[in-house]
Amino acid sequence: MNKKPKGARLSDDQRFDWLRLIRSENVGPRTFLALINNCGGARAALDALPDLARRGGARQPIRVASVEEVEREIALAVKIGVRFVALGEPEYPPALRQIDSAPPVLALRGLEEAMQQPAIAIVGSRNASAAGLTFADRLARGLGQAGYTVVSGLARGIDQRAHVAALETGTIGVLAGGHAKPYPPEAVALLPRIEKYGAIVSEMPLEWEPRGRDFPRRNRLVSGLSLGTVVIEAARGSGSLITAKFAAEQNREVFAAPGSPLDPRAEGTNELLRQGANLCARLEDVLAIVDPLRERDPFSNLEESPRETGEPLWGEHPLLGVDPAATPRARLGDALDEAAAHDFGAGLEGDVDRRRVEALLGPAPISIDDLARAAELDVRTIRQAIIELDLAGRIEYCGGNRVALIATDAET
Amino acid sequence: MNKKPKGARLSDDQRFDWLRLIRSENVGPRTFLALINNCGGARAALDALPDLARRGGARQPIRVASVEEVEREIALAVKIGVRFVALGEPEYPPALRQIDSAPPVLALRGLEEAMQQPAIAIVGSRNASAAGLTFADRLARGLGQAGYTVVSGLARGIDQRAHVAALETGTIGVLAGGHAKPYPPEAVALLPRIEKYGAIVSEMPLEWEPRGRDFPRRNRLVSGLSLGTVVIEAARGSGSLITAKFAAEQNREVFAAPGSPLDPRAEGTNELLRQGANLCARLEDVLAIVDPLRERDPFSNLEESPRETGEPLWGEHPLLGVDPAATPRARLGDALDEAAAHDFGAGLEGDVDRRRVEALLGPAPISIDDLARAAELDVRTIRQAIIELDLAGRIEYCGGNRVALIATDAET
Repeated sequence: MNKKPKGARLSDDQRFDWLRLIRSENVGPRTFLALINNCGGARAALDALPDLARRGGARQPIRVASVEEVEREIALAVKIGVRFVALGEPEYPPALRQIDSAPPVLALRGLEEAMQQPAIAIVGSRNASAAGLTFADRLARGLGQAGYTVVSGLARGIDQRAHVAALETGTIGVLAGGHAKPYPPEAVALLPRIEKYGAIVSEMPLEWEPRGRDFPRRNRLVSGLSLGTVVIEAARGSGSLITAKFAAEQNREVFAAPGSPLDPRAEGTNELLRQGANLCARLEDVLAIVDPLRERDPFSNLEESPRETGEPLWGEHPLLGVDPAATPRARLGDALDEAAAHDFGAGLEGDVDRRRVEALLGPAPISIDDLARAAELDVRTIRQAIIELDLAGRIEYCGGNRVALIATDAET
Repeated sequence: MNKKPKGARLSDDQRFDWLRLIRSENVGPRTFLALINNCGGARAALDALPDLARRGGARQPIRVASVEEVEREIALAVKIGVRFVALGEPEYPPALRQIDSAPPVLALRGLEEAMQQPAIAIVGSRNASAAGLTFADRLARGLGQAGYTVVSGLARGIDQRAHVAALETGTIGVLAGGHAKPYPPEAVALLPRIEKYGAIVSEMPLEWEPRGRDFPRRNRLVSGLSLGTVVIEAARGSGSLITAKFAAEQNREVFAAPGSPLDPRAEGTNELLRQGANLCARLEDVLAIVDPLRERDPFSNLEESPRETGEPLWGEHPLLGVDPAATPRARLGDALDEAAAHDFGAGLEGDVDRRRVEALLGPAPISIDDLARAAELDVRTIRQAIIELDLAGRIEYCGGNRVALIATDAET
């Protein structure tokens, strides 16, 4: 049933550099890819980091992850059974590979095979009703029997019930923190059971204690691993709605279980239905939509991407602007030519162009294209300015491939 | 707030003939209008009935309501406080006037004014949950305060709860049987309270005992009186779903309250949501859609129709084919010219044309236009054949202005 996974493996040295680059200050998934592609590899990007950040306006030298730090993380990983899978390697989950800010390195415990199956996320309220829990159980079992891996966020309530119901057919739990600091505590006992037929994944350093802002970030992985996300019982403003929002942004299906107008736990799901989410009141509601998607194998058009050979990594994001759906090889080739024609390490022409970009940026998100028009600069110049500003900690990525400037007093 | 009602009153003699015609065998609302328009009035239609039915293949003479029978019904009406309002009279509810099979005569108790306000139907399960009843109560109160009359079917459960919550702001109960046989029994105590600020209406003879098939027929009036129908808790196959279906066919809004996937009382409403009904989990969900409709005053384009003067009644139905929305006066004029050019009383050319139409009809519904094409006859001839067949009890009207032949052994 499963396709033969595609991709080429990194060497141990390359994997070390990748981990070191993504663990460095202000290097998020988008900037990681831009750096790799523009510098020609992680090694060169690590060398370029301090200069780029300084040009972007960093007041203090950027903190590049040390060799010792990364050696310690790798040693701990070996000790607790965690493996690192890099974007583009065959084991990397194909659905996740397609999202805008796919983690360059995924830390994994359990079975890689579980991540090659088509998956559906089931998320919902921590304070779920008995009916909500029962429905989560039924749905997760049914999806498992239909050949889907069930993805969730390990929280108590709906999440854990979905994981438990899908234990034997395969389930993926996504941590908000690192593997060495599993959270929430009541999920700890569940983890070894999930690993037996499924997987636990995290993009964070192994010893990272999850904080509030890590949960929404984690939710993009829950939706990104999945063809669709089903929300069962969610109050207004609940984290499950963030997962649904990510699913929609990632062009994945969103499902919501309806609930009584008088039940506050249904306010969020009913609101999703108002906004056009698919109604999910039985297994068939999900299968009717995702079975045809699965047949189309939407992630099979991802090509193997021999990174670290000078050829840009696949990725659709504001810094690369590569659309993998449309003849990816050709587009990647174009991007490569463009990259080769430009001496990235030299940075922008003086500070003039970057300052012009910076002056046009503000707290309101703007797209790269709009920015290029406003600045009367080419898109490539804009992207480089943004990389530099981002490494200086001054850029925020917003929905729809737009960026905003983080308020700072660095210039005053 | 209410518009000045439009329309001209019938004389007492005309009203008598209307009542006699609609109480005659096989004369439904559609055939009633066709007869009035084609024969030039109810009096002439009554005279033509026996011949038309015989030509349509009736094995026994058609039962025309007797003068005595109608006198008795009128006497009883006076006694129990029921008034008759005819289609086209100012008191006739404007929204109802627009439906495909508007009753020619409505028997009414209570306040005619209640029927001039914009209305919303609230219907649902007889075995409703406490939450469903509470929601019906809240919604009906809110709609009443927002200036809407609440329409329902007087059944126990959701219907009665909606009526009671809207008593003081105005509610309309629609009977499936006649006023002298109110049903269900537990609604009887409620009727005088409804009449105080609202109305009870029925299209059936005053002494009609409602039977199973009368309830779906009644439901078209519940939806037809209303800008929109809200269904709160409905099991699969419940009568409330028939009301929703009528509302959709009548181009009215359909709302459904969501419910838990595990609650059988929500299966019908969740199915409506799957089919695209508007989600209703709070008053604002309804107001957001119907307030703008109400502003547009969708029923104000109905003109006064001086029937009984030889000018056809307004009505869009398969036998007339008149579209009241588009310059109704002109269209009605055309229909009149056409009618005048044709000696309707003489019936079809021999039996040949009717037999051709009859041979093309079957249990599968077909539109008048398709029938005309297949028969290679003009639409007017088709319509006359159908009137005759209908009066012989052999025609069934289906959704979308289509007709089917009722199986019969009359010809064998």
